[in-house]
Amino acid sequence: MNLAMIEAAAARMTGHVRHTPLLHAPLLDRVAGRRVFVKAECLQVTGSFKARGGWSAVSALSPDARARGVIAFSSGNHAQGVAYAAAAHSAPCVILMPSDAPAVKIANTRAHGAEVVLYDRATQDRDAIGARISADRGLTLVKPYDDPQVIAGQGTVGLELAHQAAEAGIAEAPVFVCCGGGGLSSGIALALQARAPGLQVRTAEPAGFDDMARSLALGSRQRNKELGGSICDAILTPSPGEMTFPILARLAGPGAVVSDAQALRAMALAFTHLRIVLEPGGAVALAAALFGDGLPETVIAVATGGNVDPKTFAAMLERSA
Amino acid sequence: MNLAMIEAAAARMTGHVRHTPLLHAPLLDRVAGRRVFVKAECLQVTGSFKARGGWSAVSALSPDARARGVIAFSSGNHAQGVAYAAAAHSAPCVILMPSDAPAVKIANTRAHGAEVVLYDRATQDRDAIGARISADRGLTLVKPYDDPQVIAGQGTVGLELAHQAAEAGIAEAPVFVCCGGGGLSSGIALALQARAPGLQVRTAEPAGFDDMARSLALGSRQRNKELGGSICDAILTPSPGEMTFPILARLAGPGAVVSDAQALRAMALAFTHLRIVLEPGGAVALAAALFGDGLPETVIAVATGGNVDPKTFAAMLERSA
Repeated sequence: MNLAMIEAAAARMTGHVRHTPLLHAPLLDRVAGRRVFVKAECLQVTGSFKARGGWSAVSALSPDARARGVIAFSSGNHAQGVAYAAAAHSAPCVILMPSDAPAVKIANTRAHGAEVVLYDRATQDRDAIGARISADRGLTLVKPYDDPQVIAGQGTVGLELAHQAAEAGIAEAPVFVCCGGGGLSSGIALALQARAPGLQVRTAEPAGFDDMARSLALGSRQRNKELGGSICDAILTPSPGEMTFPILARLAGPGAVVSDAQALRAMALAFTHLRIVLEPGGAVALAAALFGDGLPETVIAVATGGNVDPKTFAAMLERSA
Repeated sequence: MNLAMIEAAAARMTGHVRHTPLLHAPLLDRVAGRRVFVKAECLQVTGSFKARGGWSAVSALSPDARARGVIAFSSGNHAQGVAYAAAAHSAPCVILMPSDAPAVKIANTRAHGAEVVLYDRATQDRDAIGARISADRGLTLVKPYDDPQVIAGQGTVGLELAHQAAEAGIAEAPVFVCCGGGGLSSGIALALQARAPGLQVRTAEPAGFDDMARSLALGSRQRNKELGGSICDAILTPSPGEMTFPILARLAGPGAVVSDAQALRAMALAFTHLRIVLEPGGAVALAAALFGDGLPETVIAVATGGNVDPKTFAAMLERSA
């Protein structure tokens, strides 16, 4: 993994994956008591940063492998990212999704042209189902984070951020990143190390699923006790990635942990002051940036995704109004 | 009114008013049956394009006039735009708002530091109240649309759009613009005439408040029968502006009219596929772009604002889910 791979991924994405804006609102700063800049990956073409990793991985395949197709396991955002990239490359695409994934994510993955295979998280073995389908059809597995091309793709967020922070006159700031397996966080950390060394990644996770924060504190990969039960469906992973953890152990600051209530409050503030739609898991970094203690005057948060069911969003608004 | 004034306004805004992205989503195109590009002014620093006109007008005042301060009449978006600009220029600012304006707009106008004076639309004479306060304090009135500097400020949307459309390879397209008094539509039309003559402004209005569409069709300024009663509070004006109408009569295509239900449906689709928050009046142009008949393969809509009460937005989501 190096900067050249991230730059190559950025070049392959041109015209297909959006440069997202770095948003900022005076009234949000007032609520936070500090300047908060938000990299709005919810405005990405599939509604999350996962379009970057998906595009990077699919576009890096050999023509033969691409013609046979790809497969991915995902509760939704990685699914849409891979499906979008596969369709644009005319590559067949199978996505295994848990049957309790948000309906909007299942519907959008299908709308991007992927064949969606649903499985029951509690009773079915996802890996076995995936292995059988892959073997039958010669599909290439696109992993959600432990894959160099996926990390390189997500790292393009860091290239843009380095440029945007410089334009805004920000030389030093923590960069909170919503963290599941750590693909985005590690990619951004690599890009920032090279391009904006005053910006340091800090992972952000929901309480109870703080495997990365604990792993960073202890210096070795820790596991979560539970596999589900937070509203932050997008970023519930059992443990940090094998490839991503060493990068973050070297480059990231301490991991932040926020409550589900703080994530919901961040969604409401993003609605009112930034006019963007965030899903709970995509608002965790913003929550850390808004509500964290002992932070400097200027902070950055990566708002990772906005694929949320209307009913979930409406319930959040009713609660916050 | 000319291009040089719009370019000068753009120069004065640098660093204070955001260049907004031109969004695009494959799944939204599928719903529309055409390519729909959305200029997301809801991501503007005060949540609507009105920050542009406000900044342009306040920054063009003499130092003396600025020190005395400004006054504006507005149901909300112009209020926030003027209040934001005034605060940044250390100019005192009074805003007269109808007491039935959305609560979020009143609260945000106050949070931007303005003195808000509420009046009852039915029983009180806004102009008389405003005239008295202005005379007492020597305030300059910043009109919402019939002011050359305001039109120049809104026209900066057109400069950005010309550049963004060229980048996206769009040489010809209708540009739907949510239209109240016509300040934004006429400013954009002037900028596009000079910079992207293949892009033509088409005003978009809510049914029952289609004064501009009827005026364009008849060649003279027509009035609406009602002054209120649509959900599109941001763009209910009695008639086209005196300055704006001749510009649009010369440069705009036929005006589009959409129902409140179509505006709500456009809000829901913007939520799901673009992950942006639109207010009803800010979604009218998108509704025209999505649901209009006989449109070409590629269309552009300016999504003008996203200042909407959480309860209104939640009700829209519940209805559409």
